[in-house]
Amino acid sequence: MTVRYLEDFSPGQIYGSGRLTLDAERIKRFAEEFDPQPFHLDEAAARNTIFKGLAASGWHTAALTMRLLVQGELRPAGGIVGAGFDEFRWPKPVRPGDELKVESEILEVRPSKSRPDQGIVKVRTATLNQNGEAVQINVGNLIVLRRPR
Amino acid sequence: MTVRYLEDFSPGQIYGSGRLTLDAERIKRFAEEFDPQPFHLDEAAARNTIFKGLAASGWHTAALTMRLLVQGELRPAGGIVGAGFDEFRWPKPVRPGDELKVESEILEVRPSKSRPDQGIVKVRTATLNQNGEAVQINVGNLIVLRRPR
Repeated sequence: MTVRYLEDFSPGQIYGSGRLTLDAERIKRFAEEFDPQPFHLDEAAARNTIFKGLAASGWHTAALTMRLLVQGELRPAGGIVGAGFDEFRWPKPVRPGDELKVESEILEVRPSKSRPDQGIVKVRTATLNQNGEAVQINVGNLIVLRRPR
Repeated sequence: MTVRYLEDFSPGQIYGSGRLTLDAERIKRFAEEFDPQPFHLDEAAARNTIFKGLAASGWHTAALTMRLLVQGELRPAGGIVGAGFDEFRWPKPVRPGDELKVESEILEVRPSKSRPDQGIVKVRTATLNQNGEAVQINVGNLIVLRRPR
């Protein structure tokens, strides 16, 4: 798959990804390193928390979303480089056994005023589970290279 | 350290954290699993990218920020559970050898209208490097339990 320059993106385009499945073992391993809280570490302890059962750290969901994006259809020139997000939320927890995929919709494309070789692509990315429910939604601003003249 | 209920938080409070140092080995290991792009994987390949040298994945910075928060002074009752962010950005890259810490400022505290046992605490969290430069800034909404009556 070839890369896409700023000029190749336009609002309304939708890009997909492969899928990956998360198990309890990986949820716990990530949490031990980065988010050691009972609801991410232990099934029994998780039952009496707001999550009412083991759930992946939101940062684990975010990191896996990134992997799906990097290996997915988007392929912006210069790589997937995010400047930040206008919106970012986790509407539902990710549970052991969930299968995730991402869908990205291009919302806006604009050349940079200060950097003639690059621009900003605003993308809405939804991370969906096997039931089509969104477990993460964000609207991010990617830095994308312009086509060399 | 005891936990803090919704009633214990008020705007203007500032909470700190310990520190941790990131090396090139860990930057690459995280990237191999979650963000396999040249600027996070290999010093030489990173030189010709927008980062002009090896840089940590933003998701690695986010995950380490979470660890500093969980082990830091904030300690909300029910754990650190984020509903989402109003703002989220990475003003500067994290480099090998950087030492990170976080500072969280309480911006707003409000009881939930639908859930009498909980509320929302709006927090601005800055992740700072050893030069005091912000490498990540976010404004998040935490779900915090109210003090039991």
